Amino acid sequence: MKRYKMYGEIITTGNELTSGKTLDINSWYAAGRLTASGLRVTRITCVGDDYDMISEALTKALKTSRFVIVTGGLGSTDDDMTNEIVARSLNRPLCLDQQMFDKIKHHVKARGIEMTSPLEKMAWMPEGSRTLNPEGTICGFSLVEKDVKLYFLPGIPDQMRYLMDKYVLPEILSLYKTLPVIRQRILKLYGLTEPHIAEIFKKVREKSGDVMFGFYPQFPENHITISLRDKDEPSVLKRLDEIEREIRRLLGAYVFAAGNQNMEGMVGKLLSENKLSISVAESCTGGLIGHRLTNVPGSSRYFHGGMLVYSNRLKVALLGVQPGTLERHGAVSDETVREMARGVREQNRTDLGLAVTGIAGPDGGTKEKPVGTVHVGLGTKDEVFTGKYRFWGNREQVKMNASMMALDYVRRYLNGDPFLPGI
Amino acid sequence: MKRYKMYGEIITTGNELTSGKTLDINSWYAAGRLTASGLRVTRITCVGDDYDMISEALTKALKTSRFVIVTGGLGSTDDDMTNEIVARSLNRPLCLDQQMFDKIKHHVKARGIEMTSPLEKMAWMPEGSRTLNPEGTICGFSLVEKDVKLYFLPGIPDQMRYLMDKYVLPEILSLYKTLPVIRQRILKLYGLTEPHIAEIFKKVREKSGDVMFGFYPQFPENHITISLRDKDEPSVLKRLDEIEREIRRLLGAYVFAAGNQNMEGMVGKLLSENKLSISVAESCTGGLIGHRLTNVPGSSRYFHGGMLVYSNRLKVALLGVQPGTLERHGAVSDETVREMARGVREQNRTDLGLAVTGIAGPDGGTKEKPVGTVHVGLGTKDEVFTGKYRFWGNREQVKMNASMMALDYVRRYLNGDPFLPGI
Repeated sequence: MKRYKMYGEIITTGNELTSGKTLDINSWYAAGRLTASGLRVTRITCVGDDYDMISEALTKALKTSRFVIVTGGLGSTDDDMTNEIVARSLNRPLCLDQQMFDKIKHHVKARGIEMTSPLEKMAWMPEGSRTLNPEGTICGFSLVEKDVKLYFLPGIPDQMRYLMDKYVLPEILSLYKTLPVIRQRILKLYGLTEPHIAEIFKKVREKSGDVMFGFYPQFPENHITISLRDKDEPSVLKRLDEIEREIRRLLGAYVFAAGNQNMEGMVGKLLSENKLSISVAESCTGGLIGHRLTNVPGSSRYFHGGMLVYSNRLKVALLGVQPGTLERHGAVSDETVREMARGVREQNRTDLGLAVTGIAGPDGGTKEKPVGTVHVGLGTKDEVFTGKYRFWGNREQVKMNASMMALDYVRRYLNGDPFLPGI
Repeated sequence: MKRYKMYGEIITTGNELTSGKTLDINSWYAAGRLTASGLRVTRITCVGDDYDMISEALTKALKTSRFVIVTGGLGSTDDDMTNEIVARSLNRPLCLDQQMFDKIKHHVKARGIEMTSPLEKMAWMPEGSRTLNPEGTICGFSLVEKDVKLYFLPGIPDQMRYLMDKYVLPEILSLYKTLPVIRQRILKLYGLTEPHIAEIFKKVREKSGDVMFGFYPQFPENHITISLRDKDEPSVLKRLDEIEREIRRLLGAYVFAAGNQNMEGMVGKLLSENKLSISVAESCTGGLIGHRLTNVPGSSRYFHGGMLVYSNRLKVALLGVQPGTLERHGAVSDETVREMARGVREQNRTDLGLAVTGIAGPDGGTKEKPVGTVHVGLGTKDEVFTGKYRFWGNREQVKMNASMMALDYVRRYLNGDPFLPGI
């Protein structure tokens, strides 16, 4: 296999990772930082505190990478044997690194503990190693083997991130004189099925040449990434803009946000811009819509509050839903959600009133109203818009989808877009 | 390298993983489940949607493992090419699996979408494959190659977990006749700092010999696992019971749940057992308490609903908080939360009324009332219990902690335990 110049690997070590006790957020962080800088991670290998496995992973990574980042095994316990494994795998003797030794001595003294042989072990490093972060307390080292840059970082996430950002990433980037500019854009979609999106994307792909598209379902959303690589930033951005425009032209209001923005953030932005206030009446979502709206900093400017009306009695008492409506049509009906939306808007004197009622399951479904049946209502100054939907999944998924659809009603209403078709 | 009989590997695939866009929680989950069952994962390899890398990982895993679990690449988009890679790597032709085809057809029909060639692609599987979960909608398959069991699961975490627990794990375990019995118990704690827990655990450790303890902060909870291995189940369970009793004796009401149970589930169980109803008045949590309570199936038996009173006007209008109270003491005060708790209980005619008001941040803090200041109130038939707390972290963390503390009030009240000390 040829050595791809901009490609690197990540190796994370530790029994706590292979046993599933600890989630490996180090490789995720390192991969994200490297990718964002225009580099590419081809493989992440996670192995336990095992001589053979670590050695094999290291030898393998050396064959195809320009840089390798290894985390874990730098501490003072018996499990920590990265230094020794590296020394033996690369056939380099362990040497006492005076800089590291002094650092440990200083640390030991400051904490009032004694220098022990396990602590001293940390200062014995493979020949040719260079201490990262010589001034600070966090330990890590690097070395060069056959033109490949190797970095050994601690397994503790905060420490690993610190060394990664301050030393490793700048060093790796300095290897590349003319790194092409890579930029990625994320578009977030709601309301289209995956095959439907795939179909539309065939068309975009045909037109857009060397663009890399990624497609990531993230329940209940679908995310699309557009990645472009070019010699300079202006030309990358120009082409990204063109492609984004084309996608938005094809997908229209199904694209609800881009980048780090989310649905509740978009709704908040639109409400702020339009100087409108909102309150909510939640039955099956139980508070999730309010929770999401209030996750946005500054939401008190437009979100006043609302009513959780899980019981029928409270639907009547707090929102003024007519008992006759509940009797004739049931709590999960167009008529009820309409009265809820109107009621919550009037009771709370807000510009908009958003209501949801449905059957989240697992019980409570009937043949006419199966689990997943949800009615959404949006009360405005002039009229109440309602829709009936059927969602799939478990209780939390139905709740999530119901809250998503409700927020999407506000977004589409304020953007002048049609609501998603119901059933 | 020899084939370790109880050893297996996990391979996760997808550019979203190697690019750091998505955190790989699938390998973590699978590794945890396998380890808890007495098996061992020797390596987790994560590669992008790349023919060579996936094929290489697969070939390598076949050499040293008894079982291999692969996730991702089973969907209908162009990135999804696991079936094809497996077929070519193992030299098996792709065959149309009628069972899978019918399943997709059924799914397509139920959702009112059309059968397309990308969807049909999912039914073309490597020769000798067996569909997992033939009755359900989630797709995955298994095959046996050179005595190694291979499992191919979707990359979507919920789906992967479902197949893992229902099919993969029982099948793998059935390969081993004399697996030692391993049992693990998880205890969940709220309200103790980590050093405090570590201190207490020193005592337990000294007494309990070969027990393996694990300690996992899971914001805002702390989880403790107790693992034991023995020849037969009764002796393992007996010793686990003893250790659990000892821990509970030392930690008391700080242990709020065990196993899969969570705080909202415990609160629901206690309310049901005591035949009590509850309603909530949420300010800074914005609906999170109601959302959590209604995540529990059957919560309509005790949860009636409540009021989201983000604005002061709604605190007065919906809960009857005195305008003078808000003027004199502010919305974030003991006096206000007391009136909120009393008001929500009386307005909604429930046995208990739970109220929260606070400053979630990032703005709104003052010197006297910094971000993270939260008041909790629990209104009962006889009196209103209140407490003032200070939480650290960002907006979502303050909200989460506030909802946790509020639910903990209900739990401790119904158990006759003292509330956590405030400030």
